[in-house]
Amino acid sequence: MHRILVLHGPNLDALGTREPDVYGHDSLSDIVQRLERLAAELGVEVKSHQSNHEGVLIDTLHGARGRTDGILLNPGGLTHTSVALRDAVAAAGVPVVEVHLTNTAAREPFRHTSLVAGAAVGVIQGFGADSYLLGLRALAGHLAHAR
Amino acid sequence: MHRILVLHGPNLDALGTREPDVYGHDSLSDIVQRLERLAAELGVEVKSHQSNHEGVLIDTLHGARGRTDGILLNPGGLTHTSVALRDAVAAAGVPVVEVHLTNTAAREPFRHTSLVAGAAVGVIQGFGADSYLLGLRALAGHLAHAR
Amino acid sequence: MHRILVLHGPNLDALGTREPDVYGHDSLSDIVQRLERLAAELGVEVKSHQSNHEGVLIDTLHGARGRTDGILLNPGGLTHTSVALRDAVAAAGVPVVEVHLTNTAAREPFRHTSLVAGAAVGVIQGFGADSYLLGLRALAGHLAHAR
Amino acid sequence: MHRILVLHGPNLDALGTREPDVYGHDSLSDIVQRLERLAAELGVEVKSHQSNHEGVLIDTLHGARGRTDGILLNPGGLTHTSVALRDAVAAAGVPVVEVHLTNTAAREPFRHTSLVAGAAVGVIQGFGADSYLLGLRALAGHLAHAR
Amino acid sequence: MHRILVLHGPNLDALGTREPDVYGHDSLSDIVQRLERLAAELGVEVKSHQSNHEGVLIDTLHGARGRTDGILLNPGGLTHTSVALRDAVAAAGVPVVEVHLTNTAAREPFRHTSLVAGAAVGVIQGFGADSYLLGLRALAGHLAHAR
Amino acid sequence: MHRILVLHGPNLDALGTREPDVYGHDSLSDIVQRLERLAAELGVEVKSHQSNHEGVLIDTLHGARGRTDGILLNPGGLTHTSVALRDAVAAAGVPVVEVHLTNTAAREPFRHTSLVAGAAVGVIQGFGADSYLLGLRALAGHLAHAR
Amino acid sequence: MHRILVLHGPNLDALGTREPDVYGHDSLSDIVQRLERLAAELGVEVKSHQSNHEGVLIDTLHGARGRTDGILLNPGGLTHTSVALRDAVAAAGVPVVEVHLTNTAAREPFRHTSLVAGAAVGVIQGFGADSYLLGLRALAGHLAHAR
Amino acid sequence: MHRILVLHGPNLDALGTREPDVYGHDSLSDIVQRLERLAAELGVEVKSHQSNHEGVLIDTLHGARGRTDGILLNPGGLTHTSVALRDAVAAAGVPVVEVHLTNTAAREPFRHTSLVAGAAVGVIQGFGADSYLLGLRALAGHLAHAR
Amino acid sequence: MHRILVLHGPNLDALGTREPDVYGHDSLSDIVQRLERLAAELGVEVKSHQSNHEGVLIDTLHGARGRTDGILLNPGGLTHTSVALRDAVAAAGVPVVEVHLTNTAAREPFRHTSLVAGAAVGVIQGFGADSYLLGLRALAGHLAHAR
Amino acid sequence: MHRILVLHGPNLDALGTREPDVYGHDSLSDIVQRLERLAAELGVEVKSHQSNHEGVLIDTLHGARGRTDGILLNPGGLTHTSVALRDAVAAAGVPVVEVHLTNTAAREPFRHTSLVAGAAVGVIQGFGADSYLLGLRALAGHLAHAR
Amino acid sequence: MHRILVLHGPNLDALGTREPDVYGHDSLSDIVQRLERLAAELGVEVKSHQSNHEGVLIDTLHGARGRTDGILLNPGGLTHTSVALRDAVAAAGVPVVEVHLTNTAAREPFRHTSLVAGAAVGVIQGFGADSYLLGLRALAGHLAHAR
Amino acid sequence: MHRILVLHGPNLDALGTREPDVYGHDSLSDIVQRLERLAAELGVEVKSHQSNHEGVLIDTLHGARGRTDGILLNPGGLTHTSVALRDAVAAAGVPVVEVHLTNTAAREPFRHTSLVAGAAVGVIQGFGADSYLLGLRALAGHLAHAR
Repeated sequence: MHRILVLHGPNLDALGTREPDVYGHDSLSDIVQRLERLAAELGVEVKSHQSNHEGVLIDTLHGARGRTDGILLNPGGLTHTSVALRDAVAAAGVPVVEVHLTNTAAREPFRHTSLVAGAAVGVIQGFGADSYLLGLRALAGHLAHAR
Repeated sequence: MHRILVLHGPNLDALGTREPDVYGHDSLSDIVQRLERLAAELGVEVKSHQSNHEGVLIDTLHGARGRTDGILLNPGGLTHTSVALRDAVAAAGVPVVEVHLTNTAAREPFRHTSLVAGAAVGVIQGFGADSYLLGLRALAGHLAHAR
Repeated sequence: MHRILVLHGPNLDALGTREPDVYGHDSLSDIVQRLERLAAELGVEVKSHQSNHEGVLIDTLHGARGRTDGILLNPGGLTHTSVALRDAVAAAGVPVVEVHLTNTAAREPFRHTSLVAGAAVGVIQGFGADSYLLGLRALAGHLAHAR
Repeated sequence: MHRILVLHGPNLDALGTREPDVYGHDSLSDIVQRLERLAAELGVEVKSHQSNHEGVLIDTLHGARGRTDGILLNPGGLTHTSVALRDAVAAAGVPVVEVHLTNTAAREPFRHTSLVAGAAVGVIQGFGADSYLLGLRALAGHLAHAR
Repeated sequence: MHRILVLHGPNLDALGTREPDVYGHDSLSDIVQRLERLAAELGVEVKSHQSNHEGVLIDTLHGARGRTDGILLNPGGLTHTSVALRDAVAAAGVPVVEVHLTNTAAREPFRHTSLVAGAAVGVIQGFGADSYLLGLRALAGHLAHAR
Repeated sequence: MHRILVLHGPNLDALGTREPDVYGHDSLSDIVQRLERLAAELGVEVKSHQSNHEGVLIDTLHGARGRTDGILLNPGGLTHTSVALRDAVAAAGVPVVEVHLTNTAAREPFRHTSLVAGAAVGVIQGFGADSYLLGLRALAGHLAHAR
Repeated sequence: MHRILVLHGPNLDALGTREPDVYGHDSLSDIVQRLERLAAELGVEVKSHQSNHEGVLIDTLHGARGRTDGILLNPGGLTHTSVALRDAVAAAGVPVVEVHLTNTAAREPFRHTSLVAGAAVGVIQGFGADSYLLGLRALAGHLAHAR
Repeated sequence: MHRILVLHGPNLDALGTREPDVYGHDSLSDIVQRLERLAAELGVEVKSHQSNHEGVLIDTLHGARGRTDGILLNPGGLTHTSVALRDAVAAAGVPVVEVHLTNTAAREPFRHTSLVAGAAVGVIQGFGADSYLLGLRALAGHLAHAR
Repeated sequence: MHRILVLHGPNLDALGTREPDVYGHDSLSDIVQRLERLAAELGVEVKSHQSNHEGVLIDTLHGARGRTDGILLNPGGLTHTSVALRDAVAAAGVPVVEVHLTNTAAREPFRHTSLVAGAAVGVIQGFGADSYLLGLRALAGHLAHAR
Repeated sequence: MHRILVLHGPNLDALGTREPDVYGHDSLSDIVQRLERLAAELGVEVKSHQSNHEGVLIDTLHGARGRTDGILLNPGGLTHTSVALRDAVAAAGVPVVEVHLTNTAAREPFRHTSLVAGAAVGVIQGFGADSYLLGLRALAGHLAHAR
Repeated sequence: MHRILVLHGPNLDALGTREPDVYGHDSLSDIVQRLERLAAELGVEVKSHQSNHEGVLIDTLHGARGRTDGILLNPGGLTHTSVALRDAVAAAGVPVVEVHLTNTAAREPFRHTSLVAGAAVGVIQGFGADSYLLGLRALAGHLAHAR
Repeated sequence: MHRILVLHGPNLDALGTREPDVYGHDSLSDIVQRLERLAAELGVEVKSHQSNHEGVLIDTLHGARGRTDGILLNPGGLTHTSVALRDAVAAAGVPVVEVHLTNTAAREPFRHTSLVAGAAVGVIQGFGADSYLLGLRALAGHLAHAR
C-alpha cells in the first residue's frame, strides 16, 4: 500500500475563514477528511501536515525519505518565491505533485509562474478542494504506473 | 447527463510517434478510448475532436455553445501564443479545463506561461494521458458542483 | 466607386452572445447591415467576410488584390500575436484600417500593443460597433484623399 | 445640444510647419474650422483649446466639468509619459476620446503605448486631420448612445 | 516656529469630485483646514499651495528656499514620471516628505515606483486625507530631531 | 478599546547594533516603549512581537484573528520577496499598516517595490522609529473612521 | 533517391507582387522551377506546397512522415510566433532546414529570433530565392552525411 | 550673424545653491555672461532663457522659428522623460545641441538615456559650465559648415 | 584564536543522499569533520550549524555577534531569494564568506545571481566539499589580514 | 574571377579537437581544402585567414578593401558581443556572408541573436563544415547577381 | 605644457571611405592635423594613436600613465560592449574625455548607452570631426581648471 | 607534477597603481611570487601570463592544450562580455578555475553575472590577492581528485 504525504504550505490553516470568495468555504480539515475517504477508496494511505514555515516544509520533505512513496504539495505563496523548497522537492527522492486551490494563471502576474513546479511531476490548479482529490488520484496513478 | 467536448490542439494527432520520450507511447485514440470508459463510469458523455488548426478549434468552441456543458482542452503549442484561442475559451459560455501531457513548467522558458489558462477554470499538466482523465473528473466535478 | 472589403477576425462570429458586457449586444450581421447603409451613403461598396482562421484571413487579403481598393480589418486576438497577418496587411497593396470594438489599451497588458497596426494606415478602437462605421469613413476618406 | 471641448496638446500649434512629411500641411486652424463645420452638421457645439503645458491641459480638463459633455483630446507627446494627464482624464467626469494625427504604432517604440488611453473611451490614430473629425463623430455618437 | 510648505500636485484641486470611490469625498480645502488645525496643535506654521503645473511646483520648491523649514509634497501623477520634480526636491535644501491619499502599491503597475521618493526623507501613502496629517507630524518630528 | 498587534519582522531584534548608520541607534525595546506610551495617549492597546521567521509571522497573523482589531507590520527584508506573507496579510481579516524605518525608495533597486503592500491599507517609510508611531496613529485613525 | 518536401508558409504565394523591394520579383513558381532543376542535378526529388494556414503546414509536416526524407521550410511570419509549428517540426521525425528570403536579423526587432529554428537542423537567410537552393543543397548534404 | 537661443530647463535657475557638489558653484548668470563673451568672440548673437516649465520651453522653441538660427538646450530632468520636448526639438526647424553640466552616464540608471537627444544634432555632457561653452562652439561650427 | 561559525542552509542536511550526481556523495558530517581538521591546522576554532529555516539562520547570525569572529555561510536556495538573509549578513558585524558546492553560474538562470553575496566579503563556488575548506582558508586569511 | 576572403574568428583554430560533439571532427585545414576545391569548381578565388583577435579580424576586413570582392565570415563567439566587428563588416564595402558551424538558435540564449548579422547579406548556420561551402556558394551567387 | 593622448578605436582608420554618409568624408589624418593645429593654439601637446585592437587600446592607456596629462578617446564600437576598456579608463589615472563622430542616441538601440562613459569625465557626440576638436578644448579646459 | 597556467586578463598589469582602494596595493609580480611559493608547497608547477588582449588570452588557452593540466584564469572585464573567451575556456580541454580580486556581486550591476563562469569548474572572488592562492589550491585539489 503506497504511503502518501500531503503537505499544506503557508496560510492553508486559515482555509474557510481566509478570503472565502477567493479560496472557498471548506476548511482544511474538510479537505483532509475528503482526502482520507478517497485514499481508502484508492487503496493508499495518506498523512497530512500543514505548516506556515518554509523550513518545516523542507524538514518534513526530508523526513519523508524512506517513509513515504509520494507527496502531494500545496506550496501556497512559496510557490512563486522559494528556490529552497524547489530544491527540497528535487531532493525528496519520491514523486511530488503540486496542487493549488485557485487557478493562479488567472490571478496577479506574480502568481503566473511556479519556481517549484520544475521539480515536480505535474501541477493541478483551479478546482478548489477538488484540486487535492485530483492530485491524490494523479499521484496514486503515477505510483501505479511506475511500479 | 452532462455533455463534454474534448478538444485536442496542434500535433496531438501525432501522439505515440511524436517524440515518444517526451510525450509517451499512447496514441490519441488510446486516450480517447480511456476517456470514453471513464465518461461511462462518471455518467457523462464525451465527444473528441482534434485539429492542428487554431481556426477549427475556435469554430468548434463556438459550435459547442448550447450543445455541450463543458470542454476539456489541450491547446498544444497554441497555449503559449494564442490570444484568439483564449478569447474563444472566454466566449464559450461553458467551463473549460486546460490539460497538458507534459509538465510545461519543467520545459523551455517559452512554455512556462499559458495565455489560455487565464480564461479557463483550471489547469492539469504533467501526468501524460492521465492528465486527460484527471481533467475529465475535474470538469465533471465542476459541473456537478455548479448545478 | 471604391470597393472596400471588411474582414472580421477570430471570435467576431460570436458577437452578441460572447461576453456581452465586454463586446456589447450587437450581432455581426447587425454591424454588417449598418456598414452597408453607411457605405450607400458614402458612395462606396462593401463586402464583409468573417473567419476564425488566420490562414483564411491571409488568403482573403491576398485574393482582394486587384478586386478591392481598401480593407477594414478587425484582427481580433490575432492583433497581438500574428506577424503573418501583419505581413499579409503589408502585402495587400491597398490601404488597411484596423478597428477594435473595445479600447484594448484599457484591458489586459497583452492587448496593449498591436503587431498588425505597424503595417496599417491607422487604428480606431473602443467605440463598439461604431468603431467599424468610423473605420469605414476613415478608409473612404483616405481613398478620396489619395485619388 | 452637446458641448464638446477639443483639447490639443504640445506642439500641435506648430502644425503645418512642423515636420510636414510626418504631420501633414494642414494648420491647426484648418483643423478647427473643419471641426466646426462638422459640429454644425452633427448638431453639437465645439470649443477648441491648444496648449504646450501639461498643467494648462489639466486645468482645462478640470474647468470643463459641468460645462462640457465630452472631450476630444490629442495629448501629443504627453500620451506616452504623463500619468498626471491620465489622472485628469479619469477625473474629468465626462467621456474623453483620444486622437492622433499619425499612426503611433508605426513609429518609434516609445510611441507604441499610451498611458492616457486606459482612461479614455477609445482611440483614433493615423488619419491626419481626419482623426479629429472621426473622433468628433465617435464622441457625438457615444454621447447619443449614452442618453 | 518651523514653517512648513504643503505642496499639492496635479489633479488634487479636483478632490471630492474626482473619482470619489478612489480618492474619497474630502475636498482639498477640507484637508487644508485639518492641516492648519494640526499645525496649531504641533506649534508649526503651514502654507498650502496646489498646482497642476510641474513647472509651478518646481518654481515653488525653489522659492521656498530660505523661507521654509520643510515641505510636505503630494506629487500626484508626477510621482511616477518626473525626474525634474525629483531634482527640485533634491535642490530644495530642506527636508521633503512625500504623501499620497491612496496606497499606490495596490493600484496599476505604473504607480508602483516613485521617481521622487529617492530624494525625499520618507513616504506615507494609503490613509486618505490622514496621509497629510501623518506627513505633517512626520515632518515636524523630523525637524525637531534635526535641531 | 482597539487592540493592535505590532509585528516586527527579520533582523529588527538587532536594532541599535545593526548597521546603526542605516537603521539608527534606537533598540527595539526603545521603540516598543514609545509605542506603548503613544497607545496610552491614543486609547488603544498594543502588543508587540518580533520574529526572524516568516512562518512565525504568518502564524501570529492568523492567531490574531478575533483577538486584535488591527496590525502594524514591519516585514523587514520579507517585504520584497514574500508572497506567503502578503497572503497572510490579506487573510488577516483586519486592517494592516506597513512601516519601514528607512526610505526603501532611496536604497538598492531590489528594495524599491513591496510584495506585501498591495494587501495593506497603507505604507509609512523613512522616519526611523517615528515610522512606527506614525503607523500606530494611522492605524488608530483608520479603525476610528471604520467604526 | 531522397524525397524532399518544400513547405512555403504564409504570404509566400504573393511573392513577386508582395513588397518587391523587400522580397524581390521572383514568383513562387519561379522558385519552385529552380528548385526542381537543382533537385534533378543533386539526384533528389522535391515536392512543393504552400499554405497561409498554420494548421495546413502542421498537417503537411505530419503527413510527410514516412513519405519524405527531409523538409525545407520557410515558415514566413510564423517563424517568430508559432510554438505549434516548432512542435510539428520537432515531431516530423526527419531533418528540417529553415530558410528565409530576407536577412531577418537586419529587419524589425520582432523578426530577430525564431521560435522554430531551435527544432531545425540549421537556418539559411538573406539570399532571396537562392536561400531555397542553398537550403536544398544543405538538406541533401545533411541526408547524404547521415546515411 | 547667427542668432542662437540658449534654453535652460528645470532647476537650472537654482545653480550655485543646488547640490553644489554635484552641479558646481557657478550661478546661471555666471554661465550666461561667459556665453555672451564667447559669442562675441565667435561672432554670433546669444539670447538666454530659463524655465522650469516644459510648456514654456516648448513655446519658446516654437517662438524661435524664423528668429533664431540654432538652439543650445539643457533640458534638465526632462531629458529622460519628455517626448513632448523631443517633439518640439524635432519641430524647431533649426539645429539643436543638447548640453548637460554633469556626465549623466555616471549617475543613476534613470539618467543613462536621453529621450531628447535622438532629435538633436549632438550632445555634450560632463564639463560643468564648460559644457555650455563647448556647445556654443559646436553649434556655431555646425551653422558655419551648413552654410 | 579566531572563532568561526559555519552555517549550512536549506537542504544541506540531505547531502550525500540528495541528487548525488549534482551535489556529490559526501555527507554533511564528512564535510564538518574535514573542516575541523583544517581548522586545527589553521589554528582557528569552528562550530557548525545546519538549518532548513531562514529564521533559524538569521537567529544564529544574530546570536553569533560577540561570540564569533567570522562566518562561513552556504545559504542554499535562499541565496537567490532572501533579502532577509542578506540583511542578517550585513547586520552580523563580522566578515561572512559565501560558499556553494556547485558552480551556480553553470546551472538554471534563477541561480545565476546571489542576493546575499552583495553583503559578503567574497564567494567560492563549484568545488564540492572543497568549497568549504577553501572558504575556511579564505576567512582565516581575511581575519589575519584584518588584525 | 571574384576574389573571396574567408575569415575565421575566435576558437576556430581549435576545430577538430575543440568539443567535437558540438563542433565536429573536421579541422580548419580540412574545411579550407574543401573550400578551395569548391572555389575552383565555382570559378572564384578564396583566401583564408583565422584569428582569435577581434582587432586582427577588423584589420583584415579593412585591408581587404579593393583586394577582395566578397567576404565569408564566421565571427565565432564575437557574433553575439562585438559592435566593433559589426561596424567593420558595414565598413568593408563588399558583401559579407555570415556562417556558423552550429545552429546557434538551438544553443544557450546568449547565442540566439547576432550583433553582426544586421550588417551582413545573410546568414547560414547549423550545417557543420557544409555551412562554409554553402556560404561560398551563397556569396558567389550574390556576386554573380550583382554584376 | 599639458600632454594629451588622442586614442582612436576600432574602424576609425577607415574614416573617409567607411560609410561616408554616416561618418563623413574626412580621413583620420585630416582630423589629426586639425587636432594638432588646435593643440598649438591651445598650448597643449597632442599625440594620436589608432588601433582596431581593444588590447592595444588598453596597453596604450596603461603606457600613458606618467607620460600624459589627459586622454581623448573615441572607443568606436567598443563603447557599447567593453567593460575591459572602461576598467582601463578608470585605471588611467588621468582624465579621459569620450568623443563620437555621430550622435549615437539617434542610431540603433544597441548604441544608446556607453559602458565606457561612466568612467570618463564627459562625452561629446554628434559633431563629426568637430567632436574631436571640442573634446580637445574640453580636456584642455578640464586640465586648466584642475591645476 | 601538475602543470598549471595562470592567466591574467585585461588591466591586471596595472595592479598596485590601478584604483588601489578597489584592487589593493599588491602588484601582479607580488601575486605571481606568492603563487610560486604556494605552488612549491603544493607540489605543482605554475606559469603566469598576463595580457590585455582577448585574442592573446584565447591563443594562450589553445596553446596550453597538451602542455598544461589546469588553468587559473582572471578574465578581468572580459568576464562579463566575452563569449569568445567562454568558448576558449570550454575548448581548453583542461579544468579552468575563475578568480577575481574583488567581490563582483557587490559592485555595479553589469559585473553581477559572468559569461565565462558557465564553462569553468568554479569561481572564487572577493579575497584580493588571496583569491589567486585559493584558486590555486582549488585547482590543485580538483586535479588531485580527478586522478
